[in-house]
Amino acid sequence: MKILVSNDDGYQSPGLIVLAEALAALGEVVVVAPERDRSGASNSLTLDRPLRAKRMPNGFIQVDGTPTDCVHLALTGLPSIEPDIVVSGINHGPNLGDDVLYSGTVAAATEGRFLGLPSIAISMASSTPQHLDTAARVAVQLVERLRERPLEASIILNVNVPDRPYAELAGFKATRLGHRHKAEPIVEARDPRGQPIYWIGPAGPEQDAGPGTDFEAVRTGFVSITPLQVDLTRHSALASLGSWLAGCV
Amino acid sequence: MKILVSNDDGYQSPGLIVLAEALAALGEVVVVAPERDRSGASNSLTLDRPLRAKRMPNGFIQVDGTPTDCVHLALTGLPSIEPDIVVSGINHGPNLGDDVLYSGTVAAATEGRFLGLPSIAISMASSTPQHLDTAARVAVQLVERLRERPLEASIILNVNVPDRPYAELAGFKATRLGHRHKAEPIVEARDPRGQPIYWIGPAGPEQDAGPGTDFEAVRTGFVSITPLQVDLTRHSALASLGSWLAGCV
Amino acid sequence: MKILVSNDDGYQSPGLIVLAEALAALGEVVVVAPERDRSGASNSLTLDRPLRAKRMPNGFIQVDGTPTDCVHLALTGLPSIEPDIVVSGINHGPNLGDDVLYSGTVAAATEGRFLGLPSIAISMASSTPQHLDTAARVAVQLVERLRERPLEASIILNVNVPDRPYAELAGFKATRLGHRHKAEPIVEARDPRGQPIYWIGPAGPEQDAGPGTDFEAVRTGFVSITPLQVDLTRHSALASLGSWLAGCV
Amino acid sequence: MKILVSNDDGYQSPGLIVLAEALAALGEVVVVAPERDRSGASNSLTLDRPLRAKRMPNGFIQVDGTPTDCVHLALTGLPSIEPDIVVSGINHGPNLGDDVLYSGTVAAATEGRFLGLPSIAISMASSTPQHLDTAARVAVQLVERLRERPLEASIILNVNVPDRPYAELAGFKATRLGHRHKAEPIVEARDPRGQPIYWIGPAGPEQDAGPGTDFEAVRTGFVSITPLQVDLTRHSALASLGSWLAGCV
Repeated sequence: MKILVSNDDGYQSPGLIVLAEALAALGEVVVVAPERDRSGASNSLTLDRPLRAKRMPNGFIQVDGTPTDCVHLALTGLPSIEPDIVVSGINHGPNLGDDVLYSGTVAAATEGRFLGLPSIAISMASSTPQHLDTAARVAVQLVERLRERPLEASIILNVNVPDRPYAELAGFKATRLGHRHKAEPIVEARDPRGQPIYWIGPAGPEQDAGPGTDFEAVRTGFVSITPLQVDLTRHSALASLGSWLAGCV
Repeated sequence: MKILVSNDDGYQSPGLIVLAEALAALGEVVVVAPERDRSGASNSLTLDRPLRAKRMPNGFIQVDGTPTDCVHLALTGLPSIEPDIVVSGINHGPNLGDDVLYSGTVAAATEGRFLGLPSIAISMASSTPQHLDTAARVAVQLVERLRERPLEASIILNVNVPDRPYAELAGFKATRLGHRHKAEPIVEARDPRGQPIYWIGPAGPEQDAGPGTDFEAVRTGFVSITPLQVDLTRHSALASLGSWLAGCV
Repeated sequence: MKILVSNDDGYQSPGLIVLAEALAALGEVVVVAPERDRSGASNSLTLDRPLRAKRMPNGFIQVDGTPTDCVHLALTGLPSIEPDIVVSGINHGPNLGDDVLYSGTVAAATEGRFLGLPSIAISMASSTPQHLDTAARVAVQLVERLRERPLEASIILNVNVPDRPYAELAGFKATRLGHRHKAEPIVEARDPRGQPIYWIGPAGPEQDAGPGTDFEAVRTGFVSITPLQVDLTRHSALASLGSWLAGCV
Repeated sequence: MKILVSNDDGYQSPGLIVLAEALAALGEVVVVAPERDRSGASNSLTLDRPLRAKRMPNGFIQVDGTPTDCVHLALTGLPSIEPDIVVSGINHGPNLGDDVLYSGTVAAATEGRFLGLPSIAISMASSTPQHLDTAARVAVQLVERLRERPLEASIILNVNVPDRPYAELAGFKATRLGHRHKAEPIVEARDPRGQPIYWIGPAGPEQDAGPGTDFEAVRTGFVSITPLQVDLTRHSALASLGSWLAGCV
């Protein structure tokens, strides 16, 4: 089994290193990851300039692009990489609810959707994680199970792991994404030359975080596993939209 | 009515200018758009540095960030902007099927999901559009209708317009997103110093483009209108995932 | 006469526009300038990615690179540009003393050193200039004189103009560069996530700003004109360095 | 003795690592270097955004900025760094003649000009160096000698070392900078979307490379040591410029 590992925190991230080492027990691991932290990159693709890929002393390949660029390169051309699955992470910090829209970790997994196996994005619920090995062990379990009992190919599993020893996990839960309130206001400041600058504010507080959500699972000590899709069509609205459009033109 | 207009081609894009002028007939238009072309930016947010916003001679506000940054700034803090709706575009080029995952145009509309009205992303089916006014007129129609007969608040309407005179449109169609095959291989080259470089290849050809899809609507001369959602949960897979996980831990 | 105009404030800078219009009285003006503000770029050249050049509606060519990239492109390859002289500016803000080491305005002029005529960098002494037309008139005078009475080809004239009406100038002065003290300390701050960030502090105060210096000329109402060289060798130290090295190896 | 080490190839460059290790024999070494390759950065300073400094596992501090930013930060604010000297390199590739105008390696040394000792920029004459230890040993020799027999404080020593074993060096030579012809033409190409792109071409061939120049020293197996200055005034032209200006205004 050939496993492509990527992330959005950059190729030097401890979470990535721990993940790659753990997955090596299951097959051949190839790491293609951004040269620096690209958190918040979402599915952005670099179209206006060429990319460079560089093999580092530890065998990892770093790319001067986004997480999506990394997986895209690996799947559509870098010689001798033909993975069966993409595992992205371990992210330092949660990717819960609306976070997944902006997440580079999830985007790297999304880019693996044309492979025969589902892709996995895995994140620690803490941004200063103490128990990366817990998430690594969860990743190994999930990849093993996927190999034995495949799920639908184009599913992406978005996994969030509480920051605690493996033995203290409450279990695994299939969850839906919760939702957050609107983000906190931007933070206005001045640069030393007196010019106004704006920082994007923190993500909003939880709005829909009750039973069944990823927020609730992690809060109660469970590994949250959310099946994601790439079809953004709101199918439930198609019929009403059709009648709403009646008379246009 | 206050209309926030943004795009991903940059604040100087002809498509943006035509759109802003047309919408001015319906209310107050505020333009907040990237300082340069940010096509392919998806929902990426700039978290590692502050942003700058600058009012240009024509009243447009340019931001040195992504489309999502622009709308985020406008909705969470730039003084005196409290729009009722976000309209993003007019993109020079289609956003059909899988394109929406990577599209900065769609991402700008997505960022408006906390407003009381749906958001609209509007794109010309040609990357060298001759009939921007057709799309502008479509945008006006849709915003007018939304004002009179609101749809669900968090819907994003992804609109693709054939590049032809308005009178030659075949009509409006509610569509689902089609799908593309895997992207074309990366394009390898050498820089003048002999080092290897890689360009992201073109989007893949249409795979699922039959009746009901956005691809088919545009191909047959219709304005394609796809309702998008921001909930990425694959709800249909929740139950089976639950049983698949049985026995973990 | 063909005049290449560039700057470091970007192709939309009022100073650039005023300069290009004024010089059009003397010959054909071609503007190749950065797409955005690149102050502080010094002589940096973009070697790791390709550049793009785009002709704007007003005929200016914008380049997604540094001031040096702009002039380099114009002199080594953009079709149909074979200028006789490079004029860079009008910078909004002074380039006095040590400033010239970091200045993109001066760097653009430096890059013209292989032409048959000297190059000119021209700056307003105020960063919020009210009298750009004064500097434009000075530029025209200098180019005219250079055409009539050429100076050495590889000289760069670094010109700083007091921000006042032309009639109130005290005159023109040939000056040497003064010197500044060490820069002010960096400005430490925290981003909204609590991480430390550092802003480069303001330039240091004047240290050597007495008679004969560019600082003194501008302070007393004169246009300061400093002849610059590109030979950084400290010739006066060559002999003593030779003896200092004696015995090495 | 406290030695600040920087470079322009990035904090992971083998040349930097070898240099830091060698200089540790002479005193306390602090490394502050760019997070990635910034060759060609010249003296550019980052003024439009804040910088981040991060201590890596090996003790090096990486900065997301230019070589000049690194030294500037170290000298004007990073706590507990008060070096006596700056040594920049070992660059992979020569910095001869006009190269020094564009060199980030030389710029890092230039930024140390306010210290009490000269600064040193050191480069290997080959861009794929085999004998970095030769340059490291040269650097140690020069720093030792500077400590014993100081030169003028604001001198920058630009050192280029032939890529051969130390025992095969022909000696040390004090040199002046040679000059190059105009750079090779830009390299035009098309991106995969058919848009024109331009690569900066190679540096021009040697024009003034005879006896006494840095080119000649390296070509004949000598370590070339050129004393540089930061005063760009062309003093020899001041008088004639004054008379040339007569009658202006």
